[in-house]
Amino acid sequence: MDNIIIGRNAVMEAIENDHAIDKIMVAKGSQGSIGKVLAKAKSKGLVVQNVDKKLLDKLAEGRPHQGIAAQIAAYQYGEMEDIFRIAKAKQEDPFVIILDGIEDPHNLGAIMRSAECAGAHGIIIPKRHSAGLTEVVAKASAGAIEYMPCVKVTNIAQTIEQMKKDGFWIAACDMGEHMYYEQNLTGPIAVVIGSEGFGISKLVKEKCDYVVSIPMRGHITSLNASNAAAILMYEIRRQRDEGR
Amino acid sequence: MDNIIIGRNAVMEAIENDHAIDKIMVAKGSQGSIGKVLAKAKSKGLVVQNVDKKLLDKLAEGRPHQGIAAQIAAYQYGEMEDIFRIAKAKQEDPFVIILDGIEDPHNLGAIMRSAECAGAHGIIIPKRHSAGLTEVVAKASAGAIEYMPCVKVTNIAQTIEQMKKDGFWIAACDMGEHMYYEQNLTGPIAVVIGSEGFGISKLVKEKCDYVVSIPMRGHITSLNASNAAAILMYEIRRQRDEGR
Repeated sequence: MDNIIIGRNAVMEAIENDHAIDKIMVAKGSQGSIGKVLAKAKSKGLVVQNVDKKLLDKLAEGRPHQGIAAQIAAYQYGEMEDIFRIAKAKQEDPFVIILDGIEDPHNLGAIMRSAECAGAHGIIIPKRHSAGLTEVVAKASAGAIEYMPCVKVTNIAQTIEQMKKDGFWIAACDMGEHMYYEQNLTGPIAVVIGSEGFGISKLVKEKCDYVVSIPMRGHITSLNASNAAAILMYEIRRQRDEGR
Repeated sequence: MDNIIIGRNAVMEAIENDHAIDKIMVAKGSQGSIGKVLAKAKSKGLVVQNVDKKLLDKLAEGRPHQGIAAQIAAYQYGEMEDIFRIAKAKQEDPFVIILDGIEDPHNLGAIMRSAECAGAHGIIIPKRHSAGLTEVVAKASAGAIEYMPCVKVTNIAQTIEQMKKDGFWIAACDMGEHMYYEQNLTGPIAVVIGSEGFGISKLVKEKCDYVVSIPMRGHITSLNASNAAAILMYEIRRQRDEGR
């Protein structure tokens, strides 16, 4: 298994050395020195998941895991400053995608790919309930992962608050009356795409400036998340290119 | 394994009873009565693949396969007439997607889903080098497979010739100078999307009326096929809705 660190000492070391840990997995019912590792993980704000011992057995491929493993990001996460720097270097208004809980790595990869092609400057994902930057994501991104900063934040709603202070317009992709192509999407913008199963969370939606809707003309009431994201990103591209 | 028929008699029966067979798989080096089955398959124009015996062992899950298996479509294919009938019932110009070799079932499913949401009337795929209507496709389509006719044709180039006679404009999604949003995409239209690895085949591209290009503003030079299809289908939707 790629990007998995197993065993109490190895995981402790990864935490202390600030490796890019996506999550720590602990076998249910683990005791003893594992408490010290978890306290350290907590102090660093890392995500800890209780899992079946069988999952760890599988990830460890027969090696002794002592009830704990850490999943390391295969690629580096970016910072908000990277997004601003890239936009500024291109002399463009910032153009960002916020993913409120995309858990399918193929969707995350495809969105990174489309974002890079559409000329977006970065992607924001939450620390919890989101696919991380794994090899599967990298493959689905067709290389875009190397160019597109992906920023992991603790709280999407708080991040949106700050972005609004920084001059962003925040558009929520959701059902509604206002068709996406009827809205002015120029200027500094971030589009929020909801999770595959549940859409945009209520708290996040309340923070958005407005809703952009994609018309649904059939029996099915929603698009695949990466397809919805592609349609909206390319509408922003179109409006920017037409200088509307 | 779902939708697999194994053994000489069972496969022969499926062929004779015109089951919707996606392909017939024969173990390399098979002899004897299998020749009769293959002759019958040939007379019906079915796709026959030579495969390793190991693949058949796996598909048969321990049951005796006698060197032959048939993959049955999990869902019914449609006919060109279905597409015309649906468009006419809605009093709309026909709106079709032609997939020139999409082999990833997740892409085929996502394209069916977006096509259904965008109000397209049908999808056309080739008999060879294409994902068929499997359970994986059905799941990725989020139910769209029940509503969207998928027509399987022997030769995409010949089908395009006939569609042009029937009044369709045929647009090829490819690199070029003419941005998709600058083109008039109203009227009876079919958009051709190329395969994941190789794009649109030369022969098919030559038959198309014009090229529609999606701008590429980054380092990556192509979109995921389902994302490209979604962007173009929704541009057609937008132009139809705006009555351009």
